[in-house]
Amino acid sequence: MVTVQQLAEICGGAAEGDTARQISGANALETATAGDLSFVANKKAAEAARASKAGCLLAPVSFESKGDWAIIRVAEPRSAFARALAVLYPKPPASSFIHPAAVIAKDASIAAGCSIGAGCVVGERVTIGENTTLAANVTLYDGVVIGARVILHSGCVIGADGFGFTLSDGQYQKFPQIGTVEIGDDVEIGANSCIDRAALGVTRIGSGTKLDNLVHVGHNCTIGRHVVIAAQTGLSGSVVIEDYAVIGGQVGIGEKARIESRAIVGGKSGVLTGQVVHAGEPVWGIPARPLKKHLKGLANIQKLPELQEQIRQLEQRLDQLEPKR
Amino acid sequence: MVTVQQLAEICGGAAEGDTARQISGANALETATAGDLSFVANKKAAEAARASKAGCLLAPVSFESKGDWAIIRVAEPRSAFARALAVLYPKPPASSFIHPAAVIAKDASIAAGCSIGAGCVVGERVTIGENTTLAANVTLYDGVVIGARVILHSGCVIGADGFGFTLSDGQYQKFPQIGTVEIGDDVEIGANSCIDRAALGVTRIGSGTKLDNLVHVGHNCTIGRHVVIAAQTGLSGSVVIEDYAVIGGQVGIGEKARIESRAIVGGKSGVLTGQVVHAGEPVWGIPARPLKKHLKGLANIQKLPELQEQIRQLEQRLDQLEPKR
Amino acid sequence: MVTVQQLAEICGGAAEGDTARQISGANALETATAGDLSFVANKKAAEAARASKAGCLLAPVSFESKGDWAIIRVAEPRSAFARALAVLYPKPPASSFIHPAAVIAKDASIAAGCSIGAGCVVGERVTIGENTTLAANVTLYDGVVIGARVILHSGCVIGADGFGFTLSDGQYQKFPQIGTVEIGDDVEIGANSCIDRAALGVTRIGSGTKLDNLVHVGHNCTIGRHVVIAAQTGLSGSVVIEDYAVIGGQVGIGEKARIESRAIVGGKSGVLTGQVVHAGEPVWGIPARPLKKHLKGLANIQKLPELQEQIRQLEQRLDQLEPKR
Repeated sequence: MVTVQQLAEICGGAAEGDTARQISGANALETATAGDLSFVANKKAAEAARASKAGCLLAPVSFESKGDWAIIRVAEPRSAFARALAVLYPKPPASSFIHPAAVIAKDASIAAGCSIGAGCVVGERVTIGENTTLAANVTLYDGVVIGARVILHSGCVIGADGFGFTLSDGQYQKFPQIGTVEIGDDVEIGANSCIDRAALGVTRIGSGTKLDNLVHVGHNCTIGRHVVIAAQTGLSGSVVIEDYAVIGGQVGIGEKARIESRAIVGGKSGVLTGQVVHAGEPVWGIPARPLKKHLKGLANIQKLPELQEQIRQLEQRLDQLEPKR
Repeated sequence: MVTVQQLAEICGGAAEGDTARQISGANALETATAGDLSFVANKKAAEAARASKAGCLLAPVSFESKGDWAIIRVAEPRSAFARALAVLYPKPPASSFIHPAAVIAKDASIAAGCSIGAGCVVGERVTIGENTTLAANVTLYDGVVIGARVILHSGCVIGADGFGFTLSDGQYQKFPQIGTVEIGDDVEIGANSCIDRAALGVTRIGSGTKLDNLVHVGHNCTIGRHVVIAAQTGLSGSVVIEDYAVIGGQVGIGEKARIESRAIVGGKSGVLTGQVVHAGEPVWGIPARPLKKHLKGLANIQKLPELQEQIRQLEQRLDQLEPKR
Repeated sequence: MVTVQQLAEICGGAAEGDTARQISGANALETATAGDLSFVANKKAAEAARASKAGCLLAPVSFESKGDWAIIRVAEPRSAFARALAVLYPKPPASSFIHPAAVIAKDASIAAGCSIGAGCVVGERVTIGENTTLAANVTLYDGVVIGARVILHSGCVIGADGFGFTLSDGQYQKFPQIGTVEIGDDVEIGANSCIDRAALGVTRIGSGTKLDNLVHVGHNCTIGRHVVIAAQTGLSGSVVIEDYAVIGGQVGIGEKARIESRAIVGGKSGVLTGQVVHAGEPVWGIPARPLKKHLKGLANIQKLPELQEQIRQLEQRLDQLEPKR
């Protein structure tokens, strides 16, 4: 339970209205009640805000409506709301907790403050940094390295063999997968995602990177820092994704492609084998092309009936002009 | 073991031939033997039926072939066959069974008749309705609510954190995911599917809805009743799918899109952020468009070589008409 | 630890340089050090080889550069390297090992030499052939049959119910899934992949076939021998894939489609319901078409602005020719 005034201080904003009001929770504008904090993210939300029963609103400086709520004006309401939530719903203090139904190899090294859920299997020689959380039923193969403050959601599989075979005498011969996986600090990986170990060397995920559910990262990929990858996207082997790139959902990225820093790949795109997406560039489509070109291409396709009509008219005009046979 | 006559009564059909024949199992037309029931779904199947060694066939009223089989004529053979299977292969009566290798939080509430497989992890304050089945290795995060007669297949993860981050000072700050998931009655969810909890509020799946394997449902989605979603489809955050919609496999649905009731989204389609698919409408493609338009568009693209040829001919005709320089 | 000369014998190649040098490991050209074997796969790699600090290189017969490394010349360096790895990093000899935290039904039959990881759940009447490996947290439903020398990675679910429902009186009625799954010898299946049991009969995966991560195989599919399927690909019900076919990642294959032997389906393709991909044919696109046609189609779409310009010029020429009104 905190007051509006206290929340304003936490969020670095200016409080207006009943600043002594007690706030005990948080909710969306539509469902918030008198004890709740809510937030106004944009113009559209400003309308919903008018009807909201929230006790306090985090709102942009320009917000004009009046109501029964107290207001805290801030530059970035969404981000401030996240900070407020951390206070209203405090996480229990980190304390080493390994569930008795987790299976941890004797020579795994687990730093202080980690929480490892039931059904987790942690392989030999695994290293896990401080305050990392493994939800239930996570699997870490032998030898993988996990940083500090990492969150791995249930069903994640880190370090399974990469997919490498050579056809020899009519049979696929397994290319041994003797590399490993290294995951930096502050990484979060969604439920049922799979990060394969390198054939040789390391499959690497940089600090601060966030992966959604059901993502596939092939062997020998190198993902930089602060990269975001949405659900069900797949990376073939040896893909490179540089810092701050943003990859949509259900994207497929071919072998040895390179997504440079701060590039943006739209949902469902297909990046070809060896393709380079340039730094800062937004791309979309199958194959992925610069966004403007892709949209222009879509528009051109939709104009095809018009084109057919233009040609028909040209033919008629020519029929008129040509001498009758 | 039942007689053809008894099966006819179960299926609400008319028996012909050796109605006292004993039937002990069921199989496809090609593999059925004398003690088996099989069924004739459509014209194509009628041909296969002629060669079938089944002891009894469920067939449409119009079915004409003759053979050694007994026949039960019904309006909907496939549906009748499903009813017969339930008798020929009775499920053991529901009885509360929690495998000793499942891990159940002390304050989880599990109704009568539930079956919970080995390796399942049921979090704190979870509620599960009557006669629900969790196959092995299912994970339910804290606080999720599961209805009655639900079937969750192995590897399902219900209630993992939604994918919400705000970039602040060059770092992704986690938007706390403090909502939950509520799943209605008679829902079935396929293996390794993931249903994320809401950031605030509830991610909801209505009664009677069926999800295939490896489906991703993002935070704050609302899926209605009797919806069908095929394998590997993904829903971004805050998607709404209304009752009786049918979604194909590998479909991607952007944030806040709305699929109205009884709409049909073809496999591999991409529904854009905020897009509305109207009630009863079949759509297809990336981006998803009304089916007829999409098919017309595909046809137009395939006619492009023809268009190029038409233009070439127009140029030649013009060359003829224009005065020589 | 082996000498260059010994490696040459293992790989069936000719050694040059310091053939007595001791090699203790293997690595990529860029990261290899003096005790490491590395390999030169192609021309591009030949450049990287020049700068490599590897102690020994597996190289094609035509390789010309000189350096401090010993060389072993072979016809297929990549394949020879895989053989060398098996010697440098020997797998521990197969020995029956069932982890105490695995849950095995009493009537499951597990042959000699199998290794079953922690958290695995093996259902009733399951049969597993010799020397098969189940990584941690694999789930085998009742009655499935697994061959010899199979590798199932973590999170695999074999034998969950197929996705079959009939709409009856406004409710989806489950079509009982009473068939099974049979997996041949030498099959490898990636992490979190799902192979559904047949409704009736058998979902079948032939010997020598390799599946990547997060693959979905629907009920009643028949996959031949030595098939390769990359990550996140999905097969609807009753799909047939014949021997030696190669399927890219994120491919979707509609019900009852047939991919004939040695056909190649490009990544992200969509094979329609009932479509036949002919033997040996490479196809690509949504819907999948012969590769050349698909590429021609893409090129035609990119030529659309040119087409529009041609039409504009034709109109101008006609304007000139037509009598002024």
